[in-house]
Amino acid sequence: MLTFIGLGLYDERSITVEGREALADADRAFAEVYTSHLVGATVDDLSDAHGIDIEVRDRAGVEQHPEDILDAAEDAHVAFLTAGDTMISTTHVDLRLRAIERGIDTRVVHGVTAQTAASGLTGLQNYRFGKAVTLPFPYAHGADGVPQSVVDSIEANRERGLHTVVYLDIKADRGEYMTADVASEMLAEGWEDVLAVAVVRAGSPEPTVAADRLSALAEREFGDPLHLLVIPGDLHHVESDALATLGGAPEDVLAENEA
Amino acid sequence: MLTFIGLGLYDERSITVEGREALADADRAFAEVYTSHLVGATVDDLSDAHGIDIEVRDRAGVEQHPEDILDAAEDAHVAFLTAGDTMISTTHVDLRLRAIERGIDTRVVHGVTAQTAASGLTGLQNYRFGKAVTLPFPYAHGADGVPQSVVDSIEANRERGLHTVVYLDIKADRGEYMTADVASEMLAEGWEDVLAVAVVRAGSPEPTVAADRLSALAEREFGDPLHLLVIPGDLHHVESDALATLGGAPEDVLAENEA
Repeated sequence: MLTFIGLGLYDERSITVEGREALADADRAFAEVYTSHLVGATVDDLSDAHGIDIEVRDRAGVEQHPEDILDAAEDAHVAFLTAGDTMISTTHVDLRLRAIERGIDTRVVHGVTAQTAASGLTGLQNYRFGKAVTLPFPYAHGADGVPQSVVDSIEANRERGLHTVVYLDIKADRGEYMTADVASEMLAEGWEDVLAVAVVRAGSPEPTVAADRLSALAEREFGDPLHLLVIPGDLHHVESDALATLGGAPEDVLAENEA
Repeated sequence: MLTFIGLGLYDERSITVEGREALADADRAFAEVYTSHLVGATVDDLSDAHGIDIEVRDRAGVEQHPEDILDAAEDAHVAFLTAGDTMISTTHVDLRLRAIERGIDTRVVHGVTAQTAASGLTGLQNYRFGKAVTLPFPYAHGADGVPQSVVDSIEANRERGLHTVVYLDIKADRGEYMTADVASEMLAEGWEDVLAVAVVRAGSPEPTVAADRLSALAEREFGDPLHLLVIPGDLHHVESDALATLGGAPEDVLAENEA
């Protein structure tokens, strides 16, 4: 039996009750903490909180050598842990398909995602978001600035009046997290007056939401990770009120986005 | 203090550990179970599981008479509960803004959403979803068939190769839940050969995923609620494998959607 469990966004308490019970029932637990990980809890914290030794695997280990996880799941209950939801990466979907191919029962226990928090914390309505994008570090995509595919996706959403979640690059193995001010500075090239919302430490006890022009957000500092940005499309009045109240958005910037 | 808590998707164990602790700390709890509710647990089940009396308010009660909730939150810790995430409805965002206006501290504890489960259970990648839509009962939008806005959104997503989550109408006060077969039949008008995925009882111990042409899904029965549909756009190979393995999608239908 292989149970995929999403740990949610922040620490050992971000998991669902169902997920905690499934983890308590497991004989062995593996975690993939490279694609994404919890900033509010170490793997040791998780092990202590849930009373089970957690074996860490990197992404390549899961992709290229899934056998030890699958072998273990053949005759024991194995939990496979990831931050956020559990099927965010194709690597994890692939692991599930391999398990099914081998006749291993699988089960998915969902976790809270950054997409959910981006909507919940900002007051922007979830059904008004278009396709999400990831903004890579320039060194990671091999060119300066913002990749054209990211620009195109944001533009296509804005043309339809839709909001865009911009995930910021994480290189967990190098300890590098793109911050909202750096991302804002990158995106401000050509879009300096465009409204954006920094969503900082979503899921933590002290999340921050800041709404302003990209050029203004680029001048601020938002502290510890994780950060993401939302580029709003057209705003309904409650959304506009929310960005003013929750994110301190200036009135004149909001007026430009009102539907 | 007013804490908004998302209950997640299915029953009293779908809440996060953090959410359960916040609820245990609360002096009073209100729930809005009309916009969306849990199919695996009654309000009494929730009250029993969490050891707190839960007072139910309908949507109009929250919208038009939020005063008793806000009055209570002025000098006690009040929890406000909703299924899924907590800020899905503008009604709840509005309640939060009113609380802040009155100087009441607010906090959001996120819950797992159907959008997350739609991606996690199907193997369709979350960053390849476009804008979501809701398919209303014909009597609810006052005309036969599928509203043009729903058609337009699905078409716009498909043109960009993106997947669409189609939420199905819920009239919780009348006990009416649109089922995936009914929705497929409505959408099959004009799109009979289009690939769709029924996601049934997401978040429950026994979720079902079924992928086939809309005309074929229209002939099936999927049992108890909640149901939703996904209309996939272009499929990457792992997504295609996932729909075959997890949803039983016929090979020829998948071939038409491969990117």
